[in-house]
Amino acid sequence: MTSQMRAEIGEQPDALRRTIDALLPRVPDIGALARETRQVLFVARGSSDNAAVYGRYLVEAHAGRLATLAAPSIATAYRRRLDLSGVLAVAISQSGKTEEIVETLDWARDCGARTVAVTNGAGSPLAEAAEVALITQAGAEIAVPATKTYTTQLAALSVLGLGLGAGVAEDDLRRVPDEVARMIALTEASPALPEIVEALAKVPGTVVSGRGIAFGTALELALKIKEACYLHAMGLSYADLLHGPIAVVDAQTPALLVAADSGPTLPGTVALARRVRGAGASAFGVGGGAELAEACTAALPGPALPEWVAPLGLIVPGQIMVESLARRLGIDPDVPRGLNKVTQTD
Amino acid sequence: MTSQMRAEIGEQPDALRRTIDALLPRVPDIGALARETRQVLFVARGSSDNAAVYGRYLVEAHAGRLATLAAPSIATAYRRRLDLSGVLAVAISQSGKTEEIVETLDWARDCGARTVAVTNGAGSPLAEAAEVALITQAGAEIAVPATKTYTTQLAALSVLGLGLGAGVAEDDLRRVPDEVARMIALTEASPALPEIVEALAKVPGTVVSGRGIAFGTALELALKIKEACYLHAMGLSYADLLHGPIAVVDAQTPALLVAADSGPTLPGTVALARRVRGAGASAFGVGGGAELAEACTAALPGPALPEWVAPLGLIVPGQIMVESLARRLGIDPDVPRGLNKVTQTD
Repeated sequence: MTSQMRAEIGEQPDALRRTIDALLPRVPDIGALARETRQVLFVARGSSDNAAVYGRYLVEAHAGRLATLAAPSIATAYRRRLDLSGVLAVAISQSGKTEEIVETLDWARDCGARTVAVTNGAGSPLAEAAEVALITQAGAEIAVPATKTYTTQLAALSVLGLGLGAGVAEDDLRRVPDEVARMIALTEASPALPEIVEALAKVPGTVVSGRGIAFGTALELALKIKEACYLHAMGLSYADLLHGPIAVVDAQTPALLVAADSGPTLPGTVALARRVRGAGASAFGVGGGAELAEACTAALPGPALPEWVAPLGLIVPGQIMVESLARRLGIDPDVPRGLNKVTQTD
Repeated sequence: MTSQMRAEIGEQPDALRRTIDALLPRVPDIGALARETRQVLFVARGSSDNAAVYGRYLVEAHAGRLATLAAPSIATAYRRRLDLSGVLAVAISQSGKTEEIVETLDWARDCGARTVAVTNGAGSPLAEAAEVALITQAGAEIAVPATKTYTTQLAALSVLGLGLGAGVAEDDLRRVPDEVARMIALTEASPALPEIVEALAKVPGTVVSGRGIAFGTALELALKIKEACYLHAMGLSYADLLHGPIAVVDAQTPALLVAADSGPTLPGTVALARRVRGAGASAFGVGGGAELAEACTAALPGPALPEWVAPLGLIVPGQIMVESLARRLGIDPDVPRGLNKVTQTD
C-alpha cells in the first residue's frame, strides 16, 4: 500500500528542479529590494514558519542581515503599527490564501516595509499583495502534511538568499534535485528506516533537535510527527534542549538529531547524541555524516550538500520516516484528524 | 511536605516589590538608550527566553517598536557580524553567567547595538558587559526550576517597556506584588488545583497554549512541566496549534489554555477551549476570567491585572500546579534529573 503523501515525496526532485529554474531569474528583482532595505522580517505559520526559520539562519549567517520572524497577532489582534522602514517583509504560505498571513503582509507594507511573497498559489491573494512574488512550482499537493510545498519553499528562500547577496554558490542549489532523488532511494534501502520506525511506534513521544541552519528542519520534522503520527514531538535547538527539556529524555523518549554533514553546529550535535545515549535514551540521527551516525543508535542518511542548502534534502528522510510511521500506527497519513489543507486563523 | 520550589513561589510578592522599587528609577536610563535606537533584539535561553517573549509582545504592542529574539548561534557558532546599528540588545540571564549569552551580547555591541542586561546576578559577567544593567532582586534561588527569578525578570521587562515609552500606567505594575500574594492563596484554595493535578498525573503529555502577551506564559508553563514533571508539554500559540499540532489533542492529551482576563486575544482562547472540548479532550484554563473558566473543564484563577502586566501573575497558579504535580508523580521538584542551575551552552 502506498499513500498520496509518499507519492508527493517522490515528486520532489521534479518540483525542486522546476522551482529553481523558475526562480533563479528573479535574483535581480530581489536584489533591487535588497538595496533599499537592511533587514528581513518573515511572516508565516505552520510548516511555512519552519521554512522561515531556515530563511532566517540563511540570511543572517550568509547574507549578513538581521532576519527575524514576525508576531502576526501584533497586526491582526493588537492592530499596532510599527516603524518597518528598511525592512523587507517576506510572507510564506503554501496556498497564499491564509487570511492572517495576507493581512500581516498588508500591515507590514502599510508600516513602511518592502514586500516579497513565497507561495505555491499563483494568482493567490498573497501573491497579489507582494511587490515580488516567488511562485513555487510544486504542483497540486493533495495530502494534508506538506512535503513538496515545503521543500520548494526552501528552494525559494535559497534564491532569496542569493538575491540578498549571500556568499554562496548558485551551483550548490542546482545540485539539489538530483541529490534528493538519490536520497529517496538511499533512505528506502536503509536498514535504519524500519529500526527507527519500530522504535518510535512504541513510545509516546520524542524530542527532535538541530541547530543553526538545521534547526528549521528539526522543527519541521517534529511538526510532521505531531500532525501525521499523533506523537508528542518537541522541536528544539540543541542549546534550548539543554536548558530544561533534556529532563524528559529517557528510555521512553528517544531523541531525533538532525544535522548537515558539515558546518559549525555539527560537533555540538554529535556531542548531544553521546549525552542522550549516556542518559539511557536512544539517539536517532538524520544526516550529519559518518560522525553523527557513529555517535547514534541508528541513523538515516542525509544529503551530500553544502550546509547552506542541506535543509532542502535533510527533511526528505524524515518525511519518508513519518509516512512509514503513520502507516505502522494505522493512521492514514494523507488525512490526519482535525486538519484541513488551508488553515484559517485570525 | 513542602519543597524549596514552593517556598520560593511564596517569596515572589516580596521579590517583585523589591525589584519594582529598585528598577523604576532606571526608566530615564532606558529612555536615553531608547532615543538612540529604534528596535529591540532580545538575547536569552530557557526560562529567560520565555521572559523575552513577554518583552517582545510588550514592546511591539505597547511601545510600537519592532522587537525580536536573537539566534545566538549566529554569534557563537557562525561568528557572523550583522549591522545592528539602531538596535537595543537586551540580554536576559538569571545567573548572568551563561557564557553563550554574555558572548552574544558582546557580539551585539561589536555589531553596533546599544546594550541592556536583565539579570539576578549583580556583578556578574553579563551585568558588567551591558551599558545599563537591570538587576532583579529575587534573592538566592535554590530550586532548579526558576520561579521568582522568572517573575522578577518580567518585572524588569515591564520597566523596560515603560522606559521605551509604552503607553501604559506605572501604577498597574505597582499593584502586582499584592495581587500575586492574593493569587497564591486563591490558587491553593481552588478545587480546580487537585482536579487538574490528578488529570495531568494520568496522561503522557499536554499542550499549553496562549497568544499575544500571554504566549510567553504558555511557553514558560510548558517548560516547567517538562523540566519538573517529565511530561511531554508543547507550548504553542493558539494560531500555531491550529496549524498541525491540534491533531495530537485527544482524550489522552488535555490542553492548558492561558489568558489574561481582558485583551484582544481572549476571545480566540475561549473559542479554542470549546474546540478542544469538542474534540473530546479536556481544556484546563489558567486565568481568562469567568469567560474562559466557563468554557473549560476546570480553571485556575488568574490575576486581576490589566493585560500588559498580567503575565507577572499569570504564571503563578501554573508554578503551584507544577510543584504539586511533581510531588504527586514522586519527583523532587527542586532537583529535576539532568539539570543544573547554571546551564552552559556554546
